[in-house]
Amino acid sequence: MQTIEQLRGLFEEYLEANAFTQQPKELYAPMAYVMGMGGKRLRPVFALMGAQLFSSRLHAALPVAMAVEVFHNFSLVHDDIMDEAPLRRGKATVHHKYGLNAGILSGDAMLIYAYEFIRQAENQPAIPRLLHVFNRVAIEVCEGQQYDMNFEQRQDVRIEDYLLMIELKTAALIGGSLVLGALSVGAPEQDIEKLMAFGRNIGVAFQLQDDILDTFGDPRKFGKKVGGDIAQNKKTFLILKALELAQGETRDKLAGYMSTNPEDEAQKIREVTAILRQLHIPEWAEKMKEQFQETALAALAGIAVPEERKAPLREMSLRLMQRES
Amino acid sequence: MQTIEQLRGLFEEYLEANAFTQQPKELYAPMAYVMGMGGKRLRPVFALMGAQLFSSRLHAALPVAMAVEVFHNFSLVHDDIMDEAPLRRGKATVHHKYGLNAGILSGDAMLIYAYEFIRQAENQPAIPRLLHVFNRVAIEVCEGQQYDMNFEQRQDVRIEDYLLMIELKTAALIGGSLVLGALSVGAPEQDIEKLMAFGRNIGVAFQLQDDILDTFGDPRKFGKKVGGDIAQNKKTFLILKALELAQGETRDKLAGYMSTNPEDEAQKIREVTAILRQLHIPEWAEKMKEQFQETALAALAGIAVPEERKAPLREMSLRLMQRES
Repeated sequence: MQTIEQLRGLFEEYLEANAFTQQPKELYAPMAYVMGMGGKRLRPVFALMGAQLFSSRLHAALPVAMAVEVFHNFSLVHDDIMDEAPLRRGKATVHHKYGLNAGILSGDAMLIYAYEFIRQAENQPAIPRLLHVFNRVAIEVCEGQQYDMNFEQRQDVRIEDYLLMIELKTAALIGGSLVLGALSVGAPEQDIEKLMAFGRNIGVAFQLQDDILDTFGDPRKFGKKVGGDIAQNKKTFLILKALELAQGETRDKLAGYMSTNPEDEAQKIREVTAILRQLHIPEWAEKMKEQFQETALAALAGIAVPEERKAPLREMSLRLMQRES
Repeated sequence: MQTIEQLRGLFEEYLEANAFTQQPKELYAPMAYVMGMGGKRLRPVFALMGAQLFSSRLHAALPVAMAVEVFHNFSLVHDDIMDEAPLRRGKATVHHKYGLNAGILSGDAMLIYAYEFIRQAENQPAIPRLLHVFNRVAIEVCEGQQYDMNFEQRQDVRIEDYLLMIELKTAALIGGSLVLGALSVGAPEQDIEKLMAFGRNIGVAFQLQDDILDTFGDPRKFGKKVGGDIAQNKKTFLILKALELAQGETRDKLAGYMSTNPEDEAQKIREVTAILRQLHIPEWAEKMKEQFQETALAALAGIAVPEERKAPLREMSLRLMQRES
């Protein structure tokens, strides 16, 4: 069995051997830049973990691991344009460094290369099935991004709308990564649905932890500005639950803050955070997160492989839920 | 045998049955809008003609015909953003009608749906091969678009650079359409390369005709503003050949006009067009176009199917070369 760190190392080697060095450089250099920014390589590691549940022939899952990482980076590049984000992981975003056109076109090319890595899967008879899973997930990510943008304008978002949105935008690709890895090594069909359920529920829990950190994280450990979601009026679970629980003046104040962009942003973040604490929102969010985590682990328990093969997935789930950045 | 018009009708029916009516509407409405703008449906008709060379089971090629049309429309939506074009076929472009973010995201979703139609090909064992051809062509289109943008900034573009660029940006997808259609009905491997060569050469000839019409077309018949390429300093074959032939003051004047944006655009178009006429560029361009057409027809001649099956392709080639819009 390979540990999470060993799996990440295996992927980084493959990534290096498949670097985007082609011509014209104006197209490929932005692709190499964003792929080289690093990050946790969460999705390819999930793909390799999905394979390792069923087989030790992990090299067979490297192309799909690459596909999900290239796809994820495509979505970051285009999302950063849509969100007008100047920075990612402390570095200039692609469109800020290379311009809007390079951001659009190199993103497009990455999306195509994601499919090219799907095609390179060793398990050729599985390709139609891999393509089906990948297409479904990729469309869900686009739909989730659209709902996310819609919700910024809407004042009637419900908690269930939000949970569906993050399932589409974030969790579907995590479930897809696991499933693509598993299918690459010929996992039996009856386990695929359970693996997808595990991944989607862990993915939602992962995003809820992101939301918690965005507001309540330790500024010294969290990579981004704490309070960013509040400043941007993002209707995360934290805000939606607070709007459900708050009453009278508190509710009016919260709703007012979350639909405007006051000049004193620091004050807004401070006051909204205080209201969230007062309503015990961190505890509500923890509880919601644990529910998804439990549903995930129940799905994992139903997969018919020896328990020790599941150890890295359990370990990864714990780490994701307890992380501070 | 189905005529070109019958093939187009067959495709339009399939298109209507597969309209983008899903949710969220903010994502799918722009997709339906651009797909409904019409146009010649050249690429799907080529896909069906590619199938008809080898089989009369044309329905088997409808999914790939849809894939190439959806892909083509994705590329139009993103190219219009990059070219800052407000209009296409006399209507507002997607990003002008729906905004930049809708243009980016609905383009992305169309690219993914193109792959979903590839996956829906009836000939399931052919899917890895279809995917390989489609990926190659899709990457070439992106590379071609990048070279096209690079060339706007460069003063040292050679005719061979230009011909490679239009092969990537335009002709590869025409060749790909024919090949995908043929592979959908199980065409023999030895004919595939010849079919690709036919399509690529016809595609280059098609683009050369486009270039001729852009400068020398009849303003009453041509859909766009005549002289647009000159105004935008596009280094088409016409300009590159003229720069090769011109001497002394004429060359300086031409080079000067094609690297600046003078206030009196109409005068620039008039004077550059006069220089091109004086250098017999229309005749040079016709000759170049015919060379590609002949190479295409020679490749078609080598395909081992009865001559009457090739009739629609010959007819289409003639029409494309003689068209006035």
